Amino acid sequence: MNAPARFFPADEPLRYVGPLSRDPYGFRWYDKDQLVLGKRMEDHLRFAVAYWHSFTWPGGDPFGGETFLRPWMHGADEMALARAKADVAFELFRILDVPFFCFHDRDIAPEGANLKESNANVRAIAEIFARKMESSKVRLLWGTANLFSHRRFMSGAATNPDPDVFAWSAAQVKNVLEVTHELGGENYVLWGGREGYETLLNTDLPRELDQMARFLNLVVEHKHKIGFKGTILIEPKPQEPTKHQYDFDVGTVYGLLCRAGLEKEVKVNVEANHATLAGHSFEHEIAMAAALGIFGSIDMNKGDAQSGWDTDQFPTNVEDTALAMYEILRAGGYTTGGTNFDAKIRRQSIDPEDLVLAHVGAMDVCARALLIAADMLEDGALQKAVDERYAGWNEPQNRAMLREGASLEAIAARAEADDLDPQPRSGRQERLETLVSSYFR
Amino acid sequence: MNAPARFFPADEPLRYVGPLSRDPYGFRWYDKDQLVLGKRMEDHLRFAVAYWHSFTWPGGDPFGGETFLRPWMHGADEMALARAKADVAFELFRILDVPFFCFHDRDIAPEGANLKESNANVRAIAEIFARKMESSKVRLLWGTANLFSHRRFMSGAATNPDPDVFAWSAAQVKNVLEVTHELGGENYVLWGGREGYETLLNTDLPRELDQMARFLNLVVEHKHKIGFKGTILIEPKPQEPTKHQYDFDVGTVYGLLCRAGLEKEVKVNVEANHATLAGHSFEHEIAMAAALGIFGSIDMNKGDAQSGWDTDQFPTNVEDTALAMYEILRAGGYTTGGTNFDAKIRRQSIDPEDLVLAHVGAMDVCARALLIAADMLEDGALQKAVDERYAGWNEPQNRAMLREGASLEAIAARAEADDLDPQPRSGRQERLETLVSSYFR
Amino acid sequence: MNAPARFFPADEPLRYVGPLSRDPYGFRWYDKDQLVLGKRMEDHLRFAVAYWHSFTWPGGDPFGGETFLRPWMHGADEMALARAKADVAFELFRILDVPFFCFHDRDIAPEGANLKESNANVRAIAEIFARKMESSKVRLLWGTANLFSHRRFMSGAATNPDPDVFAWSAAQVKNVLEVTHELGGENYVLWGGREGYETLLNTDLPRELDQMARFLNLVVEHKHKIGFKGTILIEPKPQEPTKHQYDFDVGTVYGLLCRAGLEKEVKVNVEANHATLAGHSFEHEIAMAAALGIFGSIDMNKGDAQSGWDTDQFPTNVEDTALAMYEILRAGGYTTGGTNFDAKIRRQSIDPEDLVLAHVGAMDVCARALLIAADMLEDGALQKAVDERYAGWNEPQNRAMLREGASLEAIAARAEADDLDPQPRSGRQERLETLVSSYFR
Amino acid sequence: MNAPARFFPADEPLRYVGPLSRDPYGFRWYDKDQLVLGKRMEDHLRFAVAYWHSFTWPGGDPFGGETFLRPWMHGADEMALARAKADVAFELFRILDVPFFCFHDRDIAPEGANLKESNANVRAIAEIFARKMESSKVRLLWGTANLFSHRRFMSGAATNPDPDVFAWSAAQVKNVLEVTHELGGENYVLWGGREGYETLLNTDLPRELDQMARFLNLVVEHKHKIGFKGTILIEPKPQEPTKHQYDFDVGTVYGLLCRAGLEKEVKVNVEANHATLAGHSFEHEIAMAAALGIFGSIDMNKGDAQSGWDTDQFPTNVEDTALAMYEILRAGGYTTGGTNFDAKIRRQSIDPEDLVLAHVGAMDVCARALLIAADMLEDGALQKAVDERYAGWNEPQNRAMLREGASLEAIAARAEADDLDPQPRSGRQERLETLVSSYFR
Repeated sequence: MNAPARFFPADEPLRYVGPLSRDPYGFRWYDKDQLVLGKRMEDHLRFAVAYWHSFTWPGGDPFGGETFLRPWMHGADEMALARAKADVAFELFRILDVPFFCFHDRDIAPEGANLKESNANVRAIAEIFARKMESSKVRLLWGTANLFSHRRFMSGAATNPDPDVFAWSAAQVKNVLEVTHELGGENYVLWGGREGYETLLNTDLPRELDQMARFLNLVVEHKHKIGFKGTILIEPKPQEPTKHQYDFDVGTVYGLLCRAGLEKEVKVNVEANHATLAGHSFEHEIAMAAALGIFGSIDMNKGDAQSGWDTDQFPTNVEDTALAMYEILRAGGYTTGGTNFDAKIRRQSIDPEDLVLAHVGAMDVCARALLIAADMLEDGALQKAVDERYAGWNEPQNRAMLREGASLEAIAARAEADDLDPQPRSGRQERLETLVSSYFR
Repeated sequence: MNAPARFFPADEPLRYVGPLSRDPYGFRWYDKDQLVLGKRMEDHLRFAVAYWHSFTWPGGDPFGGETFLRPWMHGADEMALARAKADVAFELFRILDVPFFCFHDRDIAPEGANLKESNANVRAIAEIFARKMESSKVRLLWGTANLFSHRRFMSGAATNPDPDVFAWSAAQVKNVLEVTHELGGENYVLWGGREGYETLLNTDLPRELDQMARFLNLVVEHKHKIGFKGTILIEPKPQEPTKHQYDFDVGTVYGLLCRAGLEKEVKVNVEANHATLAGHSFEHEIAMAAALGIFGSIDMNKGDAQSGWDTDQFPTNVEDTALAMYEILRAGGYTTGGTNFDAKIRRQSIDPEDLVLAHVGAMDVCARALLIAADMLEDGALQKAVDERYAGWNEPQNRAMLREGASLEAIAARAEADDLDPQPRSGRQERLETLVSSYFR
Repeated sequence: MNAPARFFPADEPLRYVGPLSRDPYGFRWYDKDQLVLGKRMEDHLRFAVAYWHSFTWPGGDPFGGETFLRPWMHGADEMALARAKADVAFELFRILDVPFFCFHDRDIAPEGANLKESNANVRAIAEIFARKMESSKVRLLWGTANLFSHRRFMSGAATNPDPDVFAWSAAQVKNVLEVTHELGGENYVLWGGREGYETLLNTDLPRELDQMARFLNLVVEHKHKIGFKGTILIEPKPQEPTKHQYDFDVGTVYGLLCRAGLEKEVKVNVEANHATLAGHSFEHEIAMAAALGIFGSIDMNKGDAQSGWDTDQFPTNVEDTALAMYEILRAGGYTTGGTNFDAKIRRQSIDPEDLVLAHVGAMDVCARALLIAADMLEDGALQKAVDERYAGWNEPQNRAMLREGASLEAIAARAEADDLDPQPRSGRQERLETLVSSYFR
Repeated sequence: MNAPARFFPADEPLRYVGPLSRDPYGFRWYDKDQLVLGKRMEDHLRFAVAYWHSFTWPGGDPFGGETFLRPWMHGADEMALARAKADVAFELFRILDVPFFCFHDRDIAPEGANLKESNANVRAIAEIFARKMESSKVRLLWGTANLFSHRRFMSGAATNPDPDVFAWSAAQVKNVLEVTHELGGENYVLWGGREGYETLLNTDLPRELDQMARFLNLVVEHKHKIGFKGTILIEPKPQEPTKHQYDFDVGTVYGLLCRAGLEKEVKVNVEANHATLAGHSFEHEIAMAAALGIFGSIDMNKGDAQSGWDTDQFPTNVEDTALAMYEILRAGGYTTGGTNFDAKIRRQSIDPEDLVLAHVGAMDVCARALLIAADMLEDGALQKAVDERYAGWNEPQNRAMLREGASLEAIAARAEADDLDPQPRSGRQERLETLVSSYFR
């Protein structure tokens, strides 16, 4: 089965048309070659399209079935369907002119009759990818193994009570990690969607944490063995599908990495909607990851402020996105990471066009946010305000308090001797918020 | 000024009256000498009354002023008021017959004209405590410094942009840590109510995390210097009063402890309502702390399931409390920790009697929960179900996967060679929940 | 295709075995003939099993596919599968010895080639139901039309922008309402799962509210035309699947009923998990419905306190359930309503046994809760405390303030003349909570 | 005691300086005389400064005391302090050049020795207001009575179990309603901060709903008696300070108004942060109020997306605010209502300057949002997309379904006869969101 010769209502790669244009089939803000802080916009943003949401999700939700009825979703020959899907996917990459894509193994190729065949299916499609990547410019931002959809994973993958599932997962990850390496992927992601629990009553929590730590070490060891130079990334999420997921948020993942001795080896892939589900702002999770030295990449999307689950919407709010971009720039920008649209069009957006326009809109939101964030950084007024606020710490006797050798006793003695009486100073939040607002355009 | 000769409508220590009694001035379930799993109930539960909520909070909320109008809350001579308050406090300890109490320095003694005087005020009241403790059986579960109420702390204590506040905080903690030591306190608690931020825009996040880590090291070093054998406890909370608090939850605190090199030195004081505000169940946070080796003590209370802030209500639900008690028992019970009622009577509960009855009701809820949890543990059916679920991991080839020397390669090879096809097995959640229900009484 | 001769691991209707029994295949608290407040327990609780969750849901979630693989879920002859499902369903009704069941049309019979055939399918299965109901004691609590799963409903049913969907929905409801009438159903339910919106940007809100009001009037008119004596029930839910659902909660539904002139014609079916998703306690929604005169029936289940979506778990907490039962008793109990288990076993509970035991456990939770609630009511201490609290309103001059003829002017004059100075009195919350606790057994 | 001759670091009314200016003491977007959709910007926005947050709140929070230490907050002569506060308030009104202000009686004047004196205090300050208003252009948007801060209201005002509190509240509202009328106020607001409950256990819900309905009728009757032509507004809030507040949200208030027979007499004052606490977007509550015919005015602010309480922050997000402004414009704009900044500077924003700059920033956010919303409206592309989506309803046979005389029977017959098979059409959400984004500037 083949995808129709022309699935999308566009043929040529979309171009920059400028902010004044009303043409929906062009970028109003994303001008990939524009220099921002001395770097091309494309190299800053490193956009990636996600295979899962865009080509594999059928439009279902917990109360309703599929709405999309894509041509490659129904048919007897599953590998033929997978090939048709790949054609459409690379067509979208081309139209959007994005430098990267990302995939889960099970999104690109069907489950086979057994482990071996399943892995072989992935390899077969990966070979098609390799050829398509040669003739295009698109590269692989990351690959990952889907260790959550099949019923064998219902109680976890690495943390499953059944060791055979652990073994199966190891074999599956080995395959995708190698495929990712071979395709020149820049990162490998682990999202532990089922690494958690539904109820503590049937769970051996310390054991599961140990299994997870061991599994992660196995992956890192294999990465080094095969010479993969990319980054291993964990994607935190607090819950959903499980009631509790171990990789709850950036702070928790950092602790688990320390416990596994891997805080120098593994970084995080921060998702906007996962951040908010965990009770954090997106920019907080980025800043926290940067502060802990584990910032890697992001899954760009947004949640619905009134919905308690992962809605994975395309970002629409420039101002919110600019605050995240600012933290990314402050962290030095991406190294191997990028901006992956882990976002899905709404279930009612059933036209092929919707898929194109959703990405165009989101790319523009990000580009515009980048320009604003760059202004914020270059102008320096924000950083100056922060520096002034902490300026007291430049005094020698104050710096000394943070060094080895300081003691409560000595500090207390000085505090009493100097009769310290610290006076609060305005945090100036509204002034800074208004300042930020002045960069919006 | 003296508290009235008789503030509470009870004089004698309350006694166990049994479940069939309807006398509100007696314990229906808390029978302190009853042996549970070979230990006296009192020694299991180690109840503590909190000075703050019970004697210092005036009944205000963000939309209304005080309602309690306690005799010791209004007057010119603040130290006299503090002494009157101490009389009432120890009267309640006596009536409730609790083995412990807890305090913040600022709750027991007024702020003085300067640091020195403030610390001296605390020492003066502590001496009164020492005398009262001699003539009663009540002991100190923990002391702590209030580093959040005064306006000097509005931007943090250890994490303040102003180093003078850091110094002040160090001096204040030194004083309370020493007072706690001298009063035979079993723990010292740090709750970083203002160690966080209102907006990232005015915050140097990495710097503040460093300040916090250094401060914590100073405290631990001083503990050792003065020979305090108690436990240093951090009390996680995700937010409130700040928008974001660094000690977000148990998992995050563990990571920060690792970063500070203190994961063997410091434990956590888990509060029920803080757990739920962070998106966790209370029992999760206890189990997580136990799994990470940092379980210390608990602040017992409950939040309102529909309110998004810390309501600090007295626990009322035996079944929920039993699940927490079960995790405490599974963790081996308390060592230096205890069950501190960090709970406040509702703003409308203005009668002195309400304070007594709220504690009696809560102590009974906990005692009943302990009995249930002990049954759950002794019966062993729950543990047996868990053990069976993970039984596969007892097989040598499976245990081997978790040991050094295992590799993805070898595991994958075996998985393919054995043609593994793991079949899901029921998690039996409803059955286990019904089993748990059968222990309730 | 036929269901296996024996799908469940039980054959005979389960019996009451008493609280001391550990036999999971018996009721520890549900003793249907036991008199409670002068009425048989069965007649109080009026339990119903829901077709949807128990027989139609395949165990999928947004991140994973089916886990249950029931024999009646896969096959070519969909009507044969539907008949096999009906056999299993009535087998479970028999084993559980419940007096009622509930269904959505699409759960009992497959979608046909067109509207006519779809409706005919429902009628065909309904005829089988009719025969099965004759030979058993089970009755129909309510029927309802599934106007949300098929993609035609993706933008709503009565509130769809496409009038043809409105027409289709009208035809489908007509069919199920008549089938419900013919099967002797005691109520007819409308849950507007898609009657809401994803974004205001594409929505004509006033128009959609008008469509909904008109649709509801059509249904009520048809009910009278066909002589259906049962109650029309709306089931409020704040969101999910839609971002916003018009029937948000009981208070909102009441307003919309007033707007449609139907507040005397239509009542509500209150679901526990929907209540908590809307920011209310379950007992609040019941009490509110009773106060507004629209309490009808309940969907019994519970949500997960940490999950932001509809988890539809079987109730496990006796104390929480007792508070809901108390409000039902205070409202006078059910008339046409009942306790429908709109609850699903967890996705990992894949054994047929899990389905039986989940219901048994939940029925016992409700029965135990009923006994407690009855004690609370009979004892009268709670009601007495409430009556005393409002006793001042029995004074003539106070009652007069609430009557026609009173005026701000006259009341103000009296308040000043009498120099009123109202003093707050304790709300005694903790005392009452402890009192409630004393009824638990 | 007098406020300092010059409290704020500005003297002259601030002027429009244009978007390119970086002068914080000027409006970058708010140009009051600019015509927007044919109306002056000032007349569109009708800004009001709130007395409470800006001049009365001392900077406290549940974990810390006051931080602001305003000169008018401490002193022996409370009426002198109130006059000093009035001077500062009108100075800010002048600097900001706002057309309106709003007040609670207790914010402007201290509680007296009794009801009579308290009311007299309010009248005394109101007379000062009257004089100040004569010599300035500022007018009164609304007045309201504080029926929640004093301990007498701890269990409610109109819904208090104590009828004397009902009477007191009636007298207090009478006074403020008349003062509001005399000052030419355009609305009178009722926010029922304590009209709700902490626990159902001590609450007679139907009785309290009746008390509230009666109270509201008394107020409406008095309004007519004194000839007040302004609008009576209820301000919905779901909770806080109470666990549950009866005026939960717009939908619920509408129902209660219908129950009281007042849906034509009373409108709502929609607050952004109250909307989000109730699980709605701000724009939803505005659109809902408009659809129900009860849209009156707004309290402009924003909540923190991660905090579960009312943070009342100044709005900062232009895009979010534009969506609210668009709904206001679609509703026809304000009649008697306006944009009241029910917003407070953060507790750490202790400089007088912060108060000025917070308002300036927020006024600019609203002005910019208004310009965007006007573009959205004028361009018409959004409305066109909506109209097209519902175009099918213009067909005669479809319109007929919504009219009297239609029946389920007839509609069903036609649906079957025509063999309707409605096909879903894309909701185009992402396209519309991108379109909205294109209006931002």
